[in-house]
Amino acid sequence: MADLMDKLVSLCKRRGFVYPSSEIYGGINACWDYGPLGTLLKNNVKAAWWRAMTQLRDDIEPLDAAILMHPKVWEASGHVEHFTDPLVDCRQCKARFRADELPGDPTDPQTPCPRCGNRGTLTPPRQFNLMFKTFMGPVEDEASVIYLRPETAQGIYVNFENVRTTARKKIPFGIAQIGKAFRNEITPGNFIFRTREFEQMEMQYFVKPGEDEKWFEYWKEQRFQWYLDIGIRREKLRFHEHGPDELAHYAKAAFDIQYEFPFGWKELEGIHNRTDYDLSRHQQYSGKKLEYFDDATREHYIPYIIETSAGCDRTMLTCLVDAYREDEVEGEKRVLLSLHPRLAPIKVAVFPLVKRDNMPEIARKIASDLRRHFTVFYDESGAIGRRYRRQDEAGTPYCVTVDSQTLEDETVTIRWRDTLEQERCKISDLARRIQQLLDSA
Amino acid sequence: MADLMDKLVSLCKRRGFVYPSSEIYGGINACWDYGPLGTLLKNNVKAAWWRAMTQLRDDIEPLDAAILMHPKVWEASGHVEHFTDPLVDCRQCKARFRADELPGDPTDPQTPCPRCGNRGTLTPPRQFNLMFKTFMGPVEDEASVIYLRPETAQGIYVNFENVRTTARKKIPFGIAQIGKAFRNEITPGNFIFRTREFEQMEMQYFVKPGEDEKWFEYWKEQRFQWYLDIGIRREKLRFHEHGPDELAHYAKAAFDIQYEFPFGWKELEGIHNRTDYDLSRHQQYSGKKLEYFDDATREHYIPYIIETSAGCDRTMLTCLVDAYREDEVEGEKRVLLSLHPRLAPIKVAVFPLVKRDNMPEIARKIASDLRRHFTVFYDESGAIGRRYRRQDEAGTPYCVTVDSQTLEDETVTIRWRDTLEQERCKISDLARRIQQLLDSA
Repeated sequence: MADLMDKLVSLCKRRGFVYPSSEIYGGINACWDYGPLGTLLKNNVKAAWWRAMTQLRDDIEPLDAAILMHPKVWEASGHVEHFTDPLVDCRQCKARFRADELPGDPTDPQTPCPRCGNRGTLTPPRQFNLMFKTFMGPVEDEASVIYLRPETAQGIYVNFENVRTTARKKIPFGIAQIGKAFRNEITPGNFIFRTREFEQMEMQYFVKPGEDEKWFEYWKEQRFQWYLDIGIRREKLRFHEHGPDELAHYAKAAFDIQYEFPFGWKELEGIHNRTDYDLSRHQQYSGKKLEYFDDATREHYIPYIIETSAGCDRTMLTCLVDAYREDEVEGEKRVLLSLHPRLAPIKVAVFPLVKRDNMPEIARKIASDLRRHFTVFYDESGAIGRRYRRQDEAGTPYCVTVDSQTLEDETVTIRWRDTLEQERCKISDLARRIQQLLDSA
Repeated sequence: MADLMDKLVSLCKRRGFVYPSSEIYGGINACWDYGPLGTLLKNNVKAAWWRAMTQLRDDIEPLDAAILMHPKVWEASGHVEHFTDPLVDCRQCKARFRADELPGDPTDPQTPCPRCGNRGTLTPPRQFNLMFKTFMGPVEDEASVIYLRPETAQGIYVNFENVRTTARKKIPFGIAQIGKAFRNEITPGNFIFRTREFEQMEMQYFVKPGEDEKWFEYWKEQRFQWYLDIGIRREKLRFHEHGPDELAHYAKAAFDIQYEFPFGWKELEGIHNRTDYDLSRHQQYSGKKLEYFDDATREHYIPYIIETSAGCDRTMLTCLVDAYREDEVEGEKRVLLSLHPRLAPIKVAVFPLVKRDNMPEIARKIASDLRRHFTVFYDESGAIGRRYRRQDEAGTPYCVTVDSQTLEDETVTIRWRDTLEQERCKISDLARRIQQLLDSA
């Protein structure tokens, strides 16, 4: 199983899904750059989320709030006070650890330093805030400290009134956002699973108190279904309910959607009943009324919030892990990414069977026509079998080949990545046929 | 003319294109949040750029590099040393200014402080770096300083070899990227024109030395044409050539594409011949060979780079400014955003003429069907004229209305935003017809 991660990291590097960031300078710990295929895949994940969460519905509005926010936001949210990890230093070797990851109580002199092995060298735990801090304006003092947002959610809460009034929404309604967030994690890892810079896909749904449990159940189901819709295997997904010791103090209920990665069952997305905590805090700290007035019942109340918080990078990792397959074709080992066609970075590859008889010219014309509709890759170099394998590894669902029959009847073959089946199709009907295949996938 | 900016800022706030960031906390200087319509518009601007720059071409690969990069990158790029503004303090009122924006030489005691008016109170200029700095890891010392990238371009340069080898590209080829960048500007302003946090759309095209001038001309034309393609008026666009005093020391040529904003002709995009400066510097600082070997001619060389660097937020501002119109309809003033249909946040609005005779049910069913293809807005509240006006102001190109004739022959009207013309269309043919209108727009 762990072997799968090594293979995947290697495939991602080799094929241009994911590179270590600033690699020519030796990399920068737990930061990653998305290469050509990775950028396309990630954009498709985001597009699938936007489509499901906003375009197909009439009750959720999109938002794109800035990364840099007023520092008071993080006082109101509780991040300045509570978004901390307890850290312990080793006085001997100068290494630093999260207190909860030590083999014992750091204040017990028998607890050894996990790095140098000395005993009695650990300091008592000290709280360390996980927000990246910077300074706005030319003066670096306390008054100019701002933070890189550690979550996108607060951008939604502070815009609740703006969105409600300008988009004329009535409760229940939601606000959805995709954007970068930053956490100065002490122990990031597992490739793109936990990184210091990451992208979130969050939706906050504002409901009437008392209807929160109904909506919580609704969103649990909807979000679980979304992972099935983008092709993730059901048996690799499960819910994990937060017990009393895991639940945030303001939360009424919380479920994680987990995926079984090679490194264990891990959180993909959290669905949280956050009660009226967030809007109450922002009302208190900003002095601005964030109550809702219900026209029909003549009631005033602070809405409850049901949050669905997903990670874009870890959804992408899930898609890659879940799609990775090895099989055998014509006696040779084949690696393929069986990505959902809607997420596949390249939809169609176009090949001339051989580099003569006008086949490259015809194939290039087909590629150029298809580009108006899909992402297309044209390839004429090497044996046809090798070109198919390269596309299998890139997750390309359909390969179109121009062969000698094309010269006679203006048809080409369409070959499926997963089944290796082929059908012949008129060139003039190709765009329509591929669109049909994508729509029914 | 300046009046237009006030009207636009007000429209943007009122209709949910752009809100001041963290507004309930009094805002944060020169940061903005994009509301529902703004998010859709911005996503459409980015999609149009990706489509033109990558999907429709076979020589440009997409990339999505991290915002946090290795600090050596900014030494190699020259940003640590040179990306500075000279600042002057007033000892009396403590205000701080850019030295080049003072009414005179700050070292001349006769130069007054622009804020308090005192003379002889200004300090000599001091260089101030415009990069936002933060600390990675738990220790805040010099060794852990990293920067928020002030431009996306460097993420492309350091990945030149990664992309070239994994995507098997030959020169000439390009790498395109959209992403956030941050500059601690002393004087941001003009709404979303100059902000401290902004999004760039950059493409770096790698060419053989000697062919750089040809490609420079090519990209000047291509990029100018793109603004015409997204509907910007030609008479509001022009080139501005950088004179010797404006040209960066490593640049061989630079042209800006400028737009005539209400606050003057301003840069929208820069097209730069950056020579082999960038790859040479990264080769030198990283110790990694960034030379290219040309199979055909058996030559080794460091590629020249032609850069096209556009701002996403200012392109969005350009679209809004350019699309803003006021006219008169049926004796009443009308405000409309004549956005290119491809960029319009909402493609179709669907209305029942009145709230009876089953019209709302039919209209809701139409809206729900159209959502599979387009962003759709359903509205049944208020007089039909008022609903049309609201959509005109939001830039919605097509409004579909269910009326009494619909009940007889299953047709609806499609009304055009710009011309106010109407046509009748079968409900069963509506999605196809709207797609046709969008494709031919």
